[in-house]
Amino acid sequence: MSNQEKLNIMRHSAAHVMAAAVLKLFPDAKFGIGPTIEDGFYYDFELPRNLSPEDLPKIEQAMSEIVKNKEKFAGQELGIDQAVKLFKDLKQDYKVELLNDLKQKGTTEVKEEGQELFEKPDKVSIYKLGDFVDLCRGPHLRHAGEVKVFKLTSIAGAYWRGDEKNPMLQRIYGTAWENQKELDAYLKNREEATKRDHRKLGKELEIFMFNENIGKGLPLLLPNGRVLREEILKLETEIENRVGYERVWTPHIAKSDLYKLTGHWEHYRECMFSPFGVDDETYVLRPMTCPHHYMIYKNKSRSWRDLPLRIAEDGTCYRYEKSGELGGLARVRCLTIDDAHIFVTPDQVKDEYRLLIKMVQQMFEAFKLKDYYVSLSTHDPKDKKKYIADEATWNKAEKSLEEILKENKIKYELCPGEAAFYGPKLDFIVHDVLGREWQMSTLQIDFFMAERLGLTYVDKKGNPAHPIIVHRGFTGSLERTIAMLIEHFAGAFPVWLSPTQIKIISVGADHIEHCRELAREFMDIGARVQVDDMNETVGNKIRKAEKERVPYMLVIGDKEIGGKELSIRERGVKKTYKIKKQEFIDKILKQIKERS
Amino acid sequence: MSNQEKLNIMRHSAAHVMAAAVLKLFPDAKFGIGPTIEDGFYYDFELPRNLSPEDLPKIEQAMSEIVKNKEKFAGQELGIDQAVKLFKDLKQDYKVELLNDLKQKGTTEVKEEGQELFEKPDKVSIYKLGDFVDLCRGPHLRHAGEVKVFKLTSIAGAYWRGDEKNPMLQRIYGTAWENQKELDAYLKNREEATKRDHRKLGKELEIFMFNENIGKGLPLLLPNGRVLREEILKLETEIENRVGYERVWTPHIAKSDLYKLTGHWEHYRECMFSPFGVDDETYVLRPMTCPHHYMIYKNKSRSWRDLPLRIAEDGTCYRYEKSGELGGLARVRCLTIDDAHIFVTPDQVKDEYRLLIKMVQQMFEAFKLKDYYVSLSTHDPKDKKKYIADEATWNKAEKSLEEILKENKIKYELCPGEAAFYGPKLDFIVHDVLGREWQMSTLQIDFFMAERLGLTYVDKKGNPAHPIIVHRGFTGSLERTIAMLIEHFAGAFPVWLSPTQIKIISVGADHIEHCRELAREFMDIGARVQVDDMNETVGNKIRKAEKERVPYMLVIGDKEIGGKELSIRERGVKKTYKIKKQEFIDKILKQIKERS
Repeated sequence: MSNQEKLNIMRHSAAHVMAAAVLKLFPDAKFGIGPTIEDGFYYDFELPRNLSPEDLPKIEQAMSEIVKNKEKFAGQELGIDQAVKLFKDLKQDYKVELLNDLKQKGTTEVKEEGQELFEKPDKVSIYKLGDFVDLCRGPHLRHAGEVKVFKLTSIAGAYWRGDEKNPMLQRIYGTAWENQKELDAYLKNREEATKRDHRKLGKELEIFMFNENIGKGLPLLLPNGRVLREEILKLETEIENRVGYERVWTPHIAKSDLYKLTGHWEHYRECMFSPFGVDDETYVLRPMTCPHHYMIYKNKSRSWRDLPLRIAEDGTCYRYEKSGELGGLARVRCLTIDDAHIFVTPDQVKDEYRLLIKMVQQMFEAFKLKDYYVSLSTHDPKDKKKYIADEATWNKAEKSLEEILKENKIKYELCPGEAAFYGPKLDFIVHDVLGREWQMSTLQIDFFMAERLGLTYVDKKGNPAHPIIVHRGFTGSLERTIAMLIEHFAGAFPVWLSPTQIKIISVGADHIEHCRELAREFMDIGARVQVDDMNETVGNKIRKAEKERVPYMLVIGDKEIGGKELSIRERGVKKTYKIKKQEFIDKILKQIKERS
Repeated sequence: MSNQEKLNIMRHSAAHVMAAAVLKLFPDAKFGIGPTIEDGFYYDFELPRNLSPEDLPKIEQAMSEIVKNKEKFAGQELGIDQAVKLFKDLKQDYKVELLNDLKQKGTTEVKEEGQELFEKPDKVSIYKLGDFVDLCRGPHLRHAGEVKVFKLTSIAGAYWRGDEKNPMLQRIYGTAWENQKELDAYLKNREEATKRDHRKLGKELEIFMFNENIGKGLPLLLPNGRVLREEILKLETEIENRVGYERVWTPHIAKSDLYKLTGHWEHYRECMFSPFGVDDETYVLRPMTCPHHYMIYKNKSRSWRDLPLRIAEDGTCYRYEKSGELGGLARVRCLTIDDAHIFVTPDQVKDEYRLLIKMVQQMFEAFKLKDYYVSLSTHDPKDKKKYIADEATWNKAEKSLEEILKENKIKYELCPGEAAFYGPKLDFIVHDVLGREWQMSTLQIDFFMAERLGLTYVDKKGNPAHPIIVHRGFTGSLERTIAMLIEHFAGAFPVWLSPTQIKIISVGADHIEHCRELAREFMDIGARVQVDDMNETVGNKIRKAEKERVPYMLVIGDKEIGGKELSIRERGVKKTYKIKKQEFIDKILKQIKERS
């Protein structure tokens, strides 16, 4: 058993300990579900009153007693009807609902955070800990004394089964670790993560907003957010132009017919918005740009000489997500995908991937993301029916991808059987400075769609052939990338990304005109600059600029107007230094150009 | 009576002459409507067979006879029921339908190209010309002999009353002029316009496409079109940055609630797409960006110090247009509006307009549009109830606008009573090289919306006040601007706008590598360059590049590789000249930078 698996068992046991403690404090408590999550666990409760943060130490106290008493986890297998009766007697309505669902719909429908509860629907297991009885697959520790150090971290509301039509339960989050040192490190990291939370910083730094009249999951990028968006796109376009990408612009809707052609209507509809009528036709917001790009490919006849043909677009797409799953910019209903569809001949796949990986690395370098790995999803050789294309084609493609990863010394993990039926895939998973994972670039091979849609090229022998399509998400979604960058840099973006690069601070009213002239000069060289000419102390203005994470602050008073040097203060540094104007201009231009 | 009015009477009479001629050739013809249009007239017919271009001389011949015979236009007033009977007897079903509509719905519903047919619904007038009888308000010439020179120009299909659910009629277009010279000039201009038609050129030059699976009126910009779009936006952003605009990015949908707040749901809904449900809420594609920008304004408290606040966005919007009214890029259902909303205090209006007009002029200069005028829509002082804000506010605003137009020596025409109820408006109407009019920039004052939505700022005295909003459409729509630019330049864009600026043509296989090196060099300085390395003659390659309207063609053979100079051929010029590479680079960079 891996350390992570052991930790998960302890955390799941801690969730039961917490539930048992809550039952002691609230004998009428009804229990939802209580799974482990990354770094901890939670449990959802229906309680007679709302919890407040002051309740957490009391619950922790009750938990400590259970741990101290080394209360036993007692597992038992029951027939499903027997279990229904047990939980009915205990008045645990939510557990009864789960059991009834399990009984009626079989095994697949009852899931706890994506994991199936039971494999055989006619038998279930329960675990007792004191008076607390849970419907639970286990496994658990032998007794509560084996729960090492734990801490309850927060309270939140959560709809039963994530559905806003259901009652809102109270969720308590907790964490458990092998020792105090690990817990402390985790809590420190968590505190830092809270400070960096892009939802909080995004508001403070005026990067994005939501508005209830516009709708859930539909972010509006404020001027600072638009700068981030433009800078990311500019970086991507620069990288693409070196290689030879063709950018297009396509509408955000299409007839539902288009998605019937591609198969999305059948297989992807639950992620799409509802259709609407125009004249006698049915239209829908697009969930991805692929079908639009296929129609562009099909618009003229193509030859092997045209391949690789690389069609790129910063295409805004609309995907339905449950409202409970929306979160800041990381999970939205309106997202701009920095997509490309690359049409290649079979013998171009390897070189194209080589190029793509280089491009992704160039982007990561600009974002100062050094720690990442690749997850390589391959086919399952045992399940031949599942996949389009023959074994040899799959093997060749997968081998090529693996070779390129090795060639580039990129950490990767193989995920056999994880590939979609139409081709293998590379996903780049990035760790930010706090070590958290963000899914970024995706490079998906598609052996299938060209044939389905009749996309062809004339090969060297003059015969029609189907191109292989590579779907490339450069960052995946601009919105999530902005969220990641905010958290990764804690809002203190490198100069090239900073919405305001230079803040010019006037000492007194006499200096304002000179500040403005200077600002125009910096603007002319392409820097983003603001003048703070408010009637406030210089100290105040510097504090404001620091809060806005502006990388350079220039204080302009009599000395600076008379002298030949600028007084510069850098973000996060208390000392001011002097520098000649031209030297400063050279410095900042270099930083912008090199994205250093 | 103006010359134009006289010409219109002659053209409308010519339409009747044409109808009478058609009736002679096709005694069973049923007649739709036959109005005058810019530069001519048309008439819609239901005929027993499809017309072909060979029919036009025959109809012209029959028209000439009617003209030669000086047949009389005989007008007569009839009661509406009498008229119904007359047209029933003539089996003119379409006329009967019009009359029945007129009878049931009163005067406003029966329109002929936007003009009301009759003022009193109980009386109508008819005009006879030989056997042809028309429901027609007149006036007409005295007799057909007064029709000077005419020509039938084309045949098209047109749904009865522009509705695709109705039968498709056959439309014949014609034109009539005072003399042969004017007709010849018109026909020549028309031929040139046909050559420049952006629908034709847009396809040939691979600028945009439509696809039936995506939908009507939804253009896809191909790589060349995307370049045009980007260059237009780059120009606009440069002009905006000099002034201090803040760019935002907002989603393409919103809850219908938003449009209920602004009043669009009530007043603008027929131009909007159908709504669709998300969870329990109703969403809709946005028809304009204004409401999104208002929510951004409202997102924080604003002070007089923040004004003018200029929020800009290249915002894609979706507007319902009848499918019969769609045409290339000029009339679409998906359009990107280069919008800005400028929030000003009352005493900033004049300076802001001064600035806006300067910005519009800078844009026109870059597009080489020299011939334009402004239409100034003002309020009607007699109709005080119609307008929000008091007489003094209106007068002051209108006077300011007129002063600025005079100050800038801009031709303008006053359109009293044409203003919307919420404020006066400037529209820039541009003439392209063929003298055709294109509606471009719009600068609309809005005294109303800030109050309706509760948008405020704290004024100098510390009191809340409502800003005045200026709606700015820079070009109006990027799609229509691209259409206009294609036609204005006949696809031969100035260097800065050209999708491909340099075409490098290899003489033989040995020269390809050198061509590619050169291409990389030009790419590095920011030029858009393509290598034509096909195995074809240089002559062929030059012809292709000329057809693509590439401004610079470089032919690379042994001499150029060995020598120190490039051989350049410019678009439309048959001769090649020699130039040092650096000189060429300086030249093209200057043209790009100065948009010359």
